[in-house]
Amino acid sequence: MKALVTGAAGFIGSNLVDRLLAEGYEVAGFDNFSTGRMEFLSDALASPRFSLHRGDLLDSASLQAAMAGAGTVFHLAANADVRYGTTNPRKDLEQNTIGTANVLEAMRACGVKRIAFASSGSVYGEPEVFPTPENAPFPLQTSLYGASKLAAEGLIEAYCEGFGIEACIFRFVSILGERYSHGHVFDFYRSLRHNPGELQVLGDGKQRKSYLYVQDCIDAVLTAWRRTGRARVEVYNVGADEYCEVNDSVRWICERLGVRPRLLYSGGSRGWVGDSPFIFLDCKKLRALGWTPKTSIRTGVLRTVAYLEQNPWLLEARCLP
Amino acid sequence: MKALVTGAAGFIGSNLVDRLLAEGYEVAGFDNFSTGRMEFLSDALASPRFSLHRGDLLDSASLQAAMAGAGTVFHLAANADVRYGTTNPRKDLEQNTIGTANVLEAMRACGVKRIAFASSGSVYGEPEVFPTPENAPFPLQTSLYGASKLAAEGLIEAYCEGFGIEACIFRFVSILGERYSHGHVFDFYRSLRHNPGELQVLGDGKQRKSYLYVQDCIDAVLTAWRRTGRARVEVYNVGADEYCEVNDSVRWICERLGVRPRLLYSGGSRGWVGDSPFIFLDCKKLRALGWTPKTSIRTGVLRTVAYLEQNPWLLEARCLP
Repeated sequence: MKALVTGAAGFIGSNLVDRLLAEGYEVAGFDNFSTGRMEFLSDALASPRFSLHRGDLLDSASLQAAMAGAGTVFHLAANADVRYGTTNPRKDLEQNTIGTANVLEAMRACGVKRIAFASSGSVYGEPEVFPTPENAPFPLQTSLYGASKLAAEGLIEAYCEGFGIEACIFRFVSILGERYSHGHVFDFYRSLRHNPGELQVLGDGKQRKSYLYVQDCIDAVLTAWRRTGRARVEVYNVGADEYCEVNDSVRWICERLGVRPRLLYSGGSRGWVGDSPFIFLDCKKLRALGWTPKTSIRTGVLRTVAYLEQNPWLLEARCLP
Repeated sequence: MKALVTGAAGFIGSNLVDRLLAEGYEVAGFDNFSTGRMEFLSDALASPRFSLHRGDLLDSASLQAAMAGAGTVFHLAANADVRYGTTNPRKDLEQNTIGTANVLEAMRACGVKRIAFASSGSVYGEPEVFPTPENAPFPLQTSLYGASKLAAEGLIEAYCEGFGIEACIFRFVSILGERYSHGHVFDFYRSLRHNPGELQVLGDGKQRKSYLYVQDCIDAVLTAWRRTGRARVEVYNVGADEYCEVNDSVRWICERLGVRPRLLYSGGSRGWVGDSPFIFLDCKKLRALGWTPKTSIRTGVLRTVAYLEQNPWLLEARCLP
């Protein structure tokens, strides 16, 4: 079985590629390398069952070329920088919404009938119910990133109804672990390396977030994916059964690095426009399939720091937004 | 106060333009005339307070030119042919989702801070709760049209959060009345004029739908629009407090025309892929503002037939899809 993984050179994508190869899949990787890293694919590239296709989701021809012969698509490519939506609103629309439409059209063209999609808990906006279930009250969007993922979910669902495709839609919390290359742990770690005496924290540090370790995330995806007897479209929350404050994360990172910086809060209950002050997803549906997260948030944060310590090149490489 | 109305030459848009002009607004109308009709604007064009801008939502420059000086936007332009989503999936994406993104970007460029948006009850997919409230359980999309409207809603909400825009989002049921130029009453009427002995009915005729007369619809929009003290984003269902079967509508039309055709059902509980077999919206939120529909579904159907009888040119003009 050949699987196409979009965003194959990204944080989650490359971990998924490695796992699929380990399980015997033939894997075609697709990435535009806007944030993906060739280094993340060094293991994959050594496999005769892996092929790499450099291309952008907006280029339908290269997408179809990469998809040829695939039986399934794991669609992870996205603009994943939630914070910068208002800086460049077109980016989320193009990479996440139009990009997904192009993936679906390529599936029609290539006769591919199954898709797994990396959506986000941010589609719940600022939920009223915690932990938030998949059938929470119809939410209002608060970020362009969330809106673009919601739009992509809707497109996938409509294609399932209209064209007989099957989909698993995964609403991820923030993911941590090896190859993590953007987000708050990355920012804190880089800042503390530069200046251990001081740390800027967005918001008041009391934002409560659920995080998940990347291997638990991939376990979740593959558990749901293998499950037979699904409905045509299944939506799954994917998160930990716990949450922490940003301040907890700061403390774990500082303890690990042995630093005691002065904390400078930007203030307010949100880190940025559209930041949700509390993210905690109800994952009962996925747990009912036998999945359970094995790694605590604290361990996930510490493994992420360890990975960044072992890969200093990653700190230098990244420029935002 | 100048208002921009997108889709100004359409069924609902042109009725809204006339009402806004009657209430003293200056109105800029924007339409690409893909389905809009210049005839619908004959009254408006006689007003010195009306200006017409021919352009497409995908052409940001002409959109911004039309928006210059406007204080508010009534965004009604859309591909409104729900049934043909699977024939040309790109159309809903472009005209409804990307088009709305362009409207929002034009608002940012022009400093326009208020938008009313014509969304659709189809964003509820096949709801589980009837009548369906605005905060129904997070739905799955079943049509590309619904998905494109959902995507547009999400974009608007995210722009409100990110850029301080205010929005009223209206989820319309199917609208009936003067200038109605597509949909089941149109199709039935045209077919019966051509052949009164026989009528093709999509599905089993037992689909239950709520419809609303166009002037009641415009009352609803303006009632919510004028309401002060709204939240930044308000979502309102807009429909009748009743529903009918497609078979009821067939009977009313046949009685009115004095015909007794043989009914040929295409079968199944849905008229087309993505058709929702039961649409009935809970409009308590809008009613709490003092709005109430004045026209029954039956009267709306009969007025629509009367309008089509008086405007035979409309039957000839339309080609689908």
